[in-house]
Amino acid sequence: MSQQLPPGKIRSFESVDDFFASTDVLVCGYGGAGASAALEAASHGARVLVVERASAGGGSTAMSSCEMYLGGSGGTALQKALGLEDSTENMIAYLTEALGEYGDAEKIRIYAEGAAAHFDWAESLGVSYKRAAFLERTVVPLTDESLLYTGNEKAHPFNKVATPIPRGHVPSKEGDEGGKIFMDALMQHVVDAGVDILHDTRVTALLTDKQGRVRGAMVRHENRDVAIRAERAVILTTGGFVMNEAMTRRYMPEVHSYAVPYGNTYDMGDGIVLGMAAGGITINMEQAFLSFPLYPPAKLTYGILLNELGQRYINEDTYLARLAWYSCQQPRKRFYLLVQNEDFEPSDYLERPRLVATGNTIAELAAEAPFPEGALEQTVNYFNSHAATGKDPLLHKTAEWLKPLTEGPFALVEYSAEEMRAVIMPGTAGPLMFTLGGLQTRPSGEVLNIDGEAIPGLFAAGRASAGLPRTAQGYASGMSVGDATFFGRLAGRSAASARCE
Amino acid sequence: MSQQLPPGKIRSFESVDDFFASTDVLVCGYGGAGASAALEAASHGARVLVVERASAGGGSTAMSSCEMYLGGSGGTALQKALGLEDSTENMIAYLTEALGEYGDAEKIRIYAEGAAAHFDWAESLGVSYKRAAFLERTVVPLTDESLLYTGNEKAHPFNKVATPIPRGHVPSKEGDEGGKIFMDALMQHVVDAGVDILHDTRVTALLTDKQGRVRGAMVRHENRDVAIRAERAVILTTGGFVMNEAMTRRYMPEVHSYAVPYGNTYDMGDGIVLGMAAGGITINMEQAFLSFPLYPPAKLTYGILLNELGQRYINEDTYLARLAWYSCQQPRKRFYLLVQNEDFEPSDYLERPRLVATGNTIAELAAEAPFPEGALEQTVNYFNSHAATGKDPLLHKTAEWLKPLTEGPFALVEYSAEEMRAVIMPGTAGPLMFTLGGLQTRPSGEVLNIDGEAIPGLFAAGRASAGLPRTAQGYASGMSVGDATFFGRLAGRSAASARCE
Repeated sequence: MSQQLPPGKIRSFESVDDFFASTDVLVCGYGGAGASAALEAASHGARVLVVERASAGGGSTAMSSCEMYLGGSGGTALQKALGLEDSTENMIAYLTEALGEYGDAEKIRIYAEGAAAHFDWAESLGVSYKRAAFLERTVVPLTDESLLYTGNEKAHPFNKVATPIPRGHVPSKEGDEGGKIFMDALMQHVVDAGVDILHDTRVTALLTDKQGRVRGAMVRHENRDVAIRAERAVILTTGGFVMNEAMTRRYMPEVHSYAVPYGNTYDMGDGIVLGMAAGGITINMEQAFLSFPLYPPAKLTYGILLNELGQRYINEDTYLARLAWYSCQQPRKRFYLLVQNEDFEPSDYLERPRLVATGNTIAELAAEAPFPEGALEQTVNYFNSHAATGKDPLLHKTAEWLKPLTEGPFALVEYSAEEMRAVIMPGTAGPLMFTLGGLQTRPSGEVLNIDGEAIPGLFAAGRASAGLPRTAQGYASGMSVGDATFFGRLAGRSAASARCE
Repeated sequence: MSQQLPPGKIRSFESVDDFFASTDVLVCGYGGAGASAALEAASHGARVLVVERASAGGGSTAMSSCEMYLGGSGGTALQKALGLEDSTENMIAYLTEALGEYGDAEKIRIYAEGAAAHFDWAESLGVSYKRAAFLERTVVPLTDESLLYTGNEKAHPFNKVATPIPRGHVPSKEGDEGGKIFMDALMQHVVDAGVDILHDTRVTALLTDKQGRVRGAMVRHENRDVAIRAERAVILTTGGFVMNEAMTRRYMPEVHSYAVPYGNTYDMGDGIVLGMAAGGITINMEQAFLSFPLYPPAKLTYGILLNELGQRYINEDTYLARLAWYSCQQPRKRFYLLVQNEDFEPSDYLERPRLVATGNTIAELAAEAPFPEGALEQTVNYFNSHAATGKDPLLHKTAEWLKPLTEGPFALVEYSAEEMRAVIMPGTAGPLMFTLGGLQTRPSGEVLNIDGEAIPGLFAAGRASAGLPRTAQGYASGMSVGDATFFGRLAGRSAASARCE
């Protein structure tokens, strides 16, 4: 009997006598991916039931700024309205560079082809996107513009392989409430579409039949274990596993040792574990989004980042996830920002930066700094001599952010992994992270087994799956919510047309 | 029925009517781990049957030099005979630093406690280890000494946390035939112990009973699929997955893109896949051993390694796996060795090094070199000024290998990932690799499920499991064969005492 593998996480469909509920498509998890899947399945004629472990829907998407990374197809309606042109090829070129060997070429292509239409869908929900761009270097605009750069588009080497264009689309509202705005609108549509929702209900096992087809799930509801029958499919949209310490320790021991989990309480990997029990395989489990929100203020970008050898290691004008990834690769995960007086200001998202050295000259600062003797002077001299001519032959920071460090006093700030303290999560130390690994799926959401075959009746989307974003090295804000909602919809559509043989 | 999950890789024990053979312990894979497990299980009173996919036993261990990384307990008999003292604490300190966050503290401790006795066991098989050490920097001694440094013991930062001592134990014979010598001796003992062996026999599915206990396996033997009953346990010792391109691409997309598989034909991950099908989980799947055998000749260590920014990035006196790991982390995986005339000689294990620049002075060489303008001169000046005083404040190469680069002509050799061509595998380009991820096991070899519980009746050892070695960053030669044979024996002992309830 299949319930033995592993015990409790999979149950024989045939052994169930009594079903608490029956539906066509059972969606497990009511965040961005789950709500998108539910709405799409319902609009394709399926009866849909959503179970959510928390007392309310929203998931990690509701906690986020709800940036979506969109473009291609000549441009989204928002990009076009601002006179910005984007092509699908340009977006594919960018994503391919950003995701490197980790990228899923098929998901990249389908996403780039459909992203502009996905923006229309988001607007169709009643979410408003102002036809205005905030083009300064920031994490999320606290004013009401809806378009911004959220990745590495303007930075080396991305600016060599693709034409830079802003692709971060965020609901218009002063402040940082995009996720709530978007999820409220989306969940209203889900309700209006007649989808049933059970809150405080955790999926605990999948029901598989003798042919290995997933036919429903066991859920814990009002302190009882009850069975739900799914005539067409089950979709796992339970989020990543960043809050499951046993899993982060097991699958990403190094990142686990220094990064701080960022997500909602129930990013516990429930769906990943259940999918594995049903024979699904997981990939990319060691990869995480990481955050080093050095900016804003943008002018800190004029500074130079140094490892403990006094070497520069990354062009400082890249996105916070890339900054974090490279920074945490440095010896002992120690890294420092050297900045001159006119650019020195606390970072908006980091508190208590440790000022490790100051000086009216670089030599004076070097005497207090933790670098090998003479290393800093050499690095700064080299940087300055080229920055004066608008060049950075070492790391290719763009001319926009090149300025010789000549005006003292100078400050050296330590932002090492253990010294980072985020304002947005007070009390924490270390870069924030969330997981980018999960069930391997086709773009349709079908969960794959070790032989690369789809497990009948089982779908996944969002961070329960290994989706579009795969590595912090090339991550752009909006890739995760964009992926979760886009491929959530695809999974909903596929699940609605899945049939038992 | 359980055979549905995934199809074909797991079968219901109860559904089998006819058993081709019955044994107490079924060992799948006849390399170092399997042979050690088989011998130990037999010597603990179990009937043992080994199935091996190849036409002869030996596995990757027979192809190797058969170095084993051993020490602790005051020293092995060989270390002691040479007046070298080692302590278990010292060995634990070293291994803990070497494996970092990836290390399994329990396996490290048990291995360090038992490693000296494991050497006695290896000798008891009739393998001869000469009481002589080869203490030059090398990969494997081609003379007949049996003790050598095979890791980073003498290099920073390892020399700060543990007292350096050579721990590489290799069978005595001129040339590099240790693996064959060892496996021939071990396999003779296996035969003498009355173990049955089926060659050309591939395990294709595990048999599990209604309680989820593993009770045997299906094997492909003489073109028939036949069932073998295991009264006590099945041990998976089928090796890693480095020869399975679909798996390396899936689990280690980045390493897959540049490294060259090194192992035996049947390192196809068979046991890993079967263990997963039975509910076992895999860890460390993205990690690999990597090889950058720059030396011998040892004197190349006097050179300095540079990335394409002209920066040094690793103390050059570290072990080949650490050199490879750090080198392949550099931008575009490009790295170069700068060496002066008196130390220039071709590497024994690398052919066709690409000489990218030469010059009678550093400035002359720099004019031909691919570094940003002025970067090389600065790096060399800094290195030289400190090397002259026996110091390397940047990367702490030991004084033994520090010598200013002042005697031209100088040569700059490119050893980038795509430029590396190994003499030992002619025609290949890129560093050699083998996989370090696999089934998560207890030191006893019990395979764990997602809840951290042992799957009854299922054991694994060697590279089918995630064993002692976990990362190239701190790998030492002998960790893999040492682990495979040591924990193979433990698995054999545990399996011999496993009983069906």
